[in-house]
Amino acid sequence: MEKKHDGLGRKIYLELSPPTEEDARGDRERLLDGLREQGYEAVVPLKTLRTLYPFCREAEWKFTAVLGWQGEKWEVLRLEKGDTSQCQYGAAVDLGSTTIMMKVIDLDTGKEAASQSIFNPQIPYGEEILSRIFYTKDQPEHLRELQELTADGLNRLLELCEEECGVPRDEYLCMTVAGNTTMIHLLLGLFPWPVFETPFAPAAKEGGFIRGKELGIEMPGYVYIFPSAANYLGGDIISGLLEAGFYKGEELSVFIDIGTNGELVAGNAEFLLAGAGAAGPALEGGISRYGMRAEKGAVDCVSISRGTLKIHTIGGGKPRGICGSGIVELLAEMFLEGWVDSAGNFNIDKFDRIIKVPNHLAPEKEEPAVCYAWADESDQGEDLVFTQTDVQEFIRTKAAAHTMVEYLLEEFGLEAGQIGRFYLAGGFGTHLELEAAVTIGIYPDLPREKFCVLGNASLKGAAELLLNREMLKDIEKIMENITYLQFGNAGDFLEKMHKAQFLPYTDLNQYPSVKEKLNGRRRGKPAEEGAVPKLANRP
Amino acid sequence: MEKKHDGLGRKIYLELSPPTEEDARGDRERLLDGLREQGYEAVVPLKTLRTLYPFCREAEWKFTAVLGWQGEKWEVLRLEKGDTSQCQYGAAVDLGSTTIMMKVIDLDTGKEAASQSIFNPQIPYGEEILSRIFYTKDQPEHLRELQELTADGLNRLLELCEEECGVPRDEYLCMTVAGNTTMIHLLLGLFPWPVFETPFAPAAKEGGFIRGKELGIEMPGYVYIFPSAANYLGGDIISGLLEAGFYKGEELSVFIDIGTNGELVAGNAEFLLAGAGAAGPALEGGISRYGMRAEKGAVDCVSISRGTLKIHTIGGGKPRGICGSGIVELLAEMFLEGWVDSAGNFNIDKFDRIIKVPNHLAPEKEEPAVCYAWADESDQGEDLVFTQTDVQEFIRTKAAAHTMVEYLLEEFGLEAGQIGRFYLAGGFGTHLELEAAVTIGIYPDLPREKFCVLGNASLKGAAELLLNREMLKDIEKIMENITYLQFGNAGDFLEKMHKAQFLPYTDLNQYPSVKEKLNGRRRGKPAEEGAVPKLANRP
Repeated sequence: MEKKHDGLGRKIYLELSPPTEEDARGDRERLLDGLREQGYEAVVPLKTLRTLYPFCREAEWKFTAVLGWQGEKWEVLRLEKGDTSQCQYGAAVDLGSTTIMMKVIDLDTGKEAASQSIFNPQIPYGEEILSRIFYTKDQPEHLRELQELTADGLNRLLELCEEECGVPRDEYLCMTVAGNTTMIHLLLGLFPWPVFETPFAPAAKEGGFIRGKELGIEMPGYVYIFPSAANYLGGDIISGLLEAGFYKGEELSVFIDIGTNGELVAGNAEFLLAGAGAAGPALEGGISRYGMRAEKGAVDCVSISRGTLKIHTIGGGKPRGICGSGIVELLAEMFLEGWVDSAGNFNIDKFDRIIKVPNHLAPEKEEPAVCYAWADESDQGEDLVFTQTDVQEFIRTKAAAHTMVEYLLEEFGLEAGQIGRFYLAGGFGTHLELEAAVTIGIYPDLPREKFCVLGNASLKGAAELLLNREMLKDIEKIMENITYLQFGNAGDFLEKMHKAQFLPYTDLNQYPSVKEKLNGRRRGKPAEEGAVPKLANRP
Repeated sequence: MEKKHDGLGRKIYLELSPPTEEDARGDRERLLDGLREQGYEAVVPLKTLRTLYPFCREAEWKFTAVLGWQGEKWEVLRLEKGDTSQCQYGAAVDLGSTTIMMKVIDLDTGKEAASQSIFNPQIPYGEEILSRIFYTKDQPEHLRELQELTADGLNRLLELCEEECGVPRDEYLCMTVAGNTTMIHLLLGLFPWPVFETPFAPAAKEGGFIRGKELGIEMPGYVYIFPSAANYLGGDIISGLLEAGFYKGEELSVFIDIGTNGELVAGNAEFLLAGAGAAGPALEGGISRYGMRAEKGAVDCVSISRGTLKIHTIGGGKPRGICGSGIVELLAEMFLEGWVDSAGNFNIDKFDRIIKVPNHLAPEKEEPAVCYAWADESDQGEDLVFTQTDVQEFIRTKAAAHTMVEYLLEEFGLEAGQIGRFYLAGGFGTHLELEAAVTIGIYPDLPREKFCVLGNASLKGAAELLLNREMLKDIEKIMENITYLQFGNAGDFLEKMHKAQFLPYTDLNQYPSVKEKLNGRRRGKPAEEGAVPKLANRP
């Protein structure tokens, strides 16, 4: 039989010859020899050892060995009578601080059997990860509490997946977990404080294989924890790189995952340079008074044509606020239509959608804003606006992302044009309209076919590893090759970031496609060539 | 610092550099790198991982890593502040069905720190091992009961050793256990039934390294279980071979351990041929009505000179019975003095110590016997006698031992004269007067310097392994080289055994030293040359 997948869990059907006086090997040795013949070096833990007699005889020496990879060898998790090798599954987890996602993969066919997500049960202890870190500081009880909550979260997901695909969790032979360094510390029950505190040396960067039961996870085998490259460059990124795959090619590529934090890796098979920065909540809609997550009622698409602004909301109903992708499109459209200039300043009094509103933080002052949805008078709603302050905040955030890319390329002595592939990972990268994102300068102005939207690369990488054990070596290679850059320590980082706080960038020549669009939209109006407003112009 | 011993447990003092922003390795990675620099590839289990923060900082990065070998790598069992590497111990165990012995070894100096023994707590479930096997048959509760009793026995020994040397068991980083296949099954909680039942394929021949706690043994590290070569050739023999050492030399040697069972291994670095047989209780004094273990009141030495029989008792007091070594000397002296002939028949009416007593099994019949201690009339005691039936029974047993040696040598195409060394292991081999044992033909008539009394080779081998991890490879080599012979299957085994049921042997020419002694003792009386009595003469 062809071996389809060679991953982290495996059921092997064996037909062994019963013992005779001539061949009086022990049951354990007979089992191990049988597995060895099929290419599996295994160990038999005490728990399984105790079941060998009389099981092997009752099964007439025809049974299935259920194997889980434990890092060095296979472990015989249990034995099942007859051939049960059609039923073997694994679970991949993306352990995010907001959302935990799980995919159940059929280890035999490689197909996805179930996919579920829940909010991270730690959220009541703080929306922000920092609150959770503080909660556990010097409090072993609190740490235990969050560890158990996290394990419970995974158990809840196992339950949901069970319900979805009808396969009991006892058949999930292995699990891979990708998460940021803090999430992994909490899952393992390690104090996350040093992740946050200078010099940022966490308790462990590598977790390796840990028995699920030891973590309180109700599955029979081992849990593999993706390693972190640095305190702010976690296993979710390593897993994402695994999915992107450029760590083994020659082509220089960039991998970017922007969320509350932005993580970035550039390189190829020779070297990998990584950095991370707090992108802030701006990109996820978190800054604006009416900003919201990408859920029902959020404005996610915006277009402006001939002075008319049109919106689309998730779910199609009444708008309640705006999410990250909506903001990016709003900004891009406003910029292309001349509603804001390249510094992000509103062109007041030119368009009826641009109004004055009290400054959110200093209500006695007024500031310009765009109203992307008028109040529905029937239910005493409010106008949904995106203010001058919001625009500037968002531009600062996109400048950070832009600058990280620029900075890493400079470290290599390269320019954006030399990038072979530009991988976009994470929810933000997935739902964003690429044209709009380039228009406002989040990403460099590359030929569009070079962009590669990965989606949840972290979860996908974790799922791939379930099916391909060789990738453990790839992870080792990534860990060896990767160099982490502390952007905070880079002298000219802030200066570069200032330069990037324009739409799309100080020098429009670096964004030829945007220049062309501007020309097209403004019908003959010249593009703002070299239009670098003085810093004094900015609020 | 010179590495004195490289065994199964180790404390390594580390002085690590604290983390900096330039070197922000995780605590775990810092610890592992520090150990790697000293040549120790280790893993950090979750339990230890959870103690790293804030321990490392509190200890100012100067601490001792407590390591236990787990089969593939070292495991960091725990960390201790400062340098505690002077205090590191291991425990070696000879798990006998009657007696369990433990030695505690200082892993730093290699010296013995304590040595204790207890009766096996399984004994109330049957003096004979078979009763215990039956007790557990199809009874998981009973199996659990005996498993726990066995672990409790080891815990009791740990306690006694603690008391003896003052070192708490938490400092015993490793344990090695040598025992016969059944004892190991009971320690591991495996049904021992298949050890006893044809085709004699036990649940496991190898145990490997098992966490002590998993077995209920109260020590921090791993327990190594010596493998069995066959159902009746257990880990105690493998451990004994380790001690004898001829498995790595050129010289053909024989290793024999006679007790209730007799185990025998012959060979050298090229091959090892092994066999085992039920020697029966005869050699341990268990047959005679007045037979007893070698304890206070047992006759252990006998001499006959000019018709006068003299005895010595253990403890020097009043004799209560006779033990194995006493029987061997009694028989040897009687044979040399002509009280019994080479077939073991008493010369009735010639000596006043030879009397007639009722046959133990058929009291209406009388049989000859030697009275080695007259009744003490003051306390209504009995005459202590060794009867014709006892003699025959003993001769059958010694014939079995003799024949096993002969048989293995024949398999090699060799004769006794070609044996380089003859290793005597076990209590019987240790306490026996060698001359007497050769005289009655238990051992072949080799130059006496070829005999090597090992004592408790099993315990000694187990203790050596604690200090020398390389011996694990030796064990592998032994296991690969060893071939087990089922004597029961050997066609001419019984025929050979018949031939050996004489003192010292059918052909006295094979025992030149005995021939000489007979000549000397009987002053001119010719030795019974070629005196092979007809089988019909025998009872």
